Amino acid sequence: MREFELIRQIQQESSVPGEGVKLGIGDDAAILEVPRGKCLVAATDTLNAGKHFPDDAEAFDIGHKSLAVNLSDLAAMGAAPRWALLSLSLPEPDSKWVRSFTAGFRSLAQVHNVVLVGGDTTRGPLSINVTALGVVDAGKGLLRSDAQVGDLIVVSGTIGGAARVLDLLQSGTSVRDRELLDRPQPRVRLGQALTGYANACIDLSDGLLADLGHILEASDCAAQIDVSTLPVPKELQNLEEHERWNYQLAGGDDYELLFTLPAKNKGMLDQWREQLNLNLTVIGQIEEGEGVQCHTADGEIFKPVRPGFEHFSDLD
Amino acid sequence: MREFELIRQIQQESSVPGEGVKLGIGDDAAILEVPRGKCLVAATDTLNAGKHFPDDAEAFDIGHKSLAVNLSDLAAMGAAPRWALLSLSLPEPDSKWVRSFTAGFRSLAQVHNVVLVGGDTTRGPLSINVTALGVVDAGKGLLRSDAQVGDLIVVSGTIGGAARVLDLLQSGTSVRDRELLDRPQPRVRLGQALTGYANACIDLSDGLLADLGHILEASDCAAQIDVSTLPVPKELQNLEEHERWNYQLAGGDDYELLFTLPAKNKGMLDQWREQLNLNLTVIGQIEEGEGVQCHTADGEIFKPVRPGFEHFSDLD
Repeated sequence: MREFELIRQIQQESSVPGEGVKLGIGDDAAILEVPRGKCLVAATDTLNAGKHFPDDAEAFDIGHKSLAVNLSDLAAMGAAPRWALLSLSLPEPDSKWVRSFTAGFRSLAQVHNVVLVGGDTTRGPLSINVTALGVVDAGKGLLRSDAQVGDLIVVSGTIGGAARVLDLLQSGTSVRDRELLDRPQPRVRLGQALTGYANACIDLSDGLLADLGHILEASDCAAQIDVSTLPVPKELQNLEEHERWNYQLAGGDDYELLFTLPAKNKGMLDQWREQLNLNLTVIGQIEEGEGVQCHTADGEIFKPVRPGFEHFSDLD
Repeated sequence: MREFELIRQIQQESSVPGEGVKLGIGDDAAILEVPRGKCLVAATDTLNAGKHFPDDAEAFDIGHKSLAVNLSDLAAMGAAPRWALLSLSLPEPDSKWVRSFTAGFRSLAQVHNVVLVGGDTTRGPLSINVTALGVVDAGKGLLRSDAQVGDLIVVSGTIGGAARVLDLLQSGTSVRDRELLDRPQPRVRLGQALTGYANACIDLSDGLLADLGHILEASDCAAQIDVSTLPVPKELQNLEEHERWNYQLAGGDDYELLFTLPAKNKGMLDQWREQLNLNLTVIGQIEEGEGVQCHTADGEIFKPVRPGFEHFSDLD
């Protein structure tokens, strides 16, 4: 398959008329209209085979995940996603693989009204780069640096399941339901709902302690976490407490949102739970000082074995 | 080197205060302001080792080229570049390599006031993805589809030199001056000057015939090219005519602009040449019909050996 045919295939299978798209795929660049009063929000992430998804991952799931991790970044800013650019490196032209990849990418894009507006294809080791572009009301973006002492710390969904699935796969155990690892659901609607209510927000990609640490560093404050409150996925239900907490504090790839909420806005949590049909759990609070202290329900300090890692290695 | 340190290093070495940057590197995404009356222009390109640059290319040059090819796409739309996102896959953390790469990236970014506002680093085979973002007055972008019968076809700089350098390197010949291949100069100022005067525009990455073909297909017209007028780089001066023309018509990687200009605007060429200190050459014209016909100064038809290729293989 020639380059232009491959691009055309992706275009045909992904392109829908989109908001603000003055010129989509097919020229040197896309031309896009950001509505007045809105700012552009831009994130980019690369996924490499064997690194960000298992070597045996389905093309459909890789398509899903490559967009999902970027939409998750936009969600963490409170932005509404609009457009995406896709750079695909493939070892060999492979129509069937591309069709399946594109179907996964497209199905998630359609859920969130994201239009593919550009990209390129190149030959190389399997690698996918996506740039996601969205919009947020000027001055309303959710920053890591805006946490305030007294804020509640809240997470969406459940925590630690993706890391458990990955661990099982890496130890050679077959896992029937890999959805938490292979098809994370970016919390796009939640992110937008939080603007104007939450102070700081981040998505959980590197692990709870590492990501919360970014907020604390940027906001110059500390946090208390009650590990007994961490929401438990079914993947962790049969584990001993300490092992479970290690997954939940240090495991990555959850792509849930962690945000800090002024106590006066606590009442919004029930409303969001109902509107979004989404689990939201208060797991701790922001305090003066620095660093994270984890404790159990009865007040004992808990120190995780792994203090938070950067994905699966020292350079990811 | 840990991921965050690597990002910090790139940030420190590249970041300058930039126009419209509400939030740069360091959060989940960047927040950017597109001025009222302007549209956003977005392009993305991936460069893989051994494919888009020689395996022995200098890190500085790879940094330069990864930004240059994307700025070239923006130039072809008539856009002013503003911001860039960089995704870097490295086999091993390598401070020295990153410093040199960043210096090359930064030096070109500074020339064109481009601010690095985000990105990620991952471990993998050497691969660089850049997304370039710019702005153009609403309705003024230069499209491939706007060529008109009677337009002059004009190219900037010289044509065919990069392909010649690549051929020599691939045949094992050492080349002292590799600048045309390793450090292409995106025609950013020319692209912006063309808005309001030129009809269609494209950058020459895949080869003159292939890229001109994209304009003709999008604009539903044909072209005559006088091969004797093609501007000759010093790298091709000693070659026999037919061999030279093959490089010029089918060779890629020039990153010059090819644009179509209404004959009534021909007078602008001298002004642009002087203002931009840039070679601009009329090489043919747009006609009714389809396809490109190449002829020599005395009117003989010339058929190139390679009819235009897609970079260096069937999937690039």
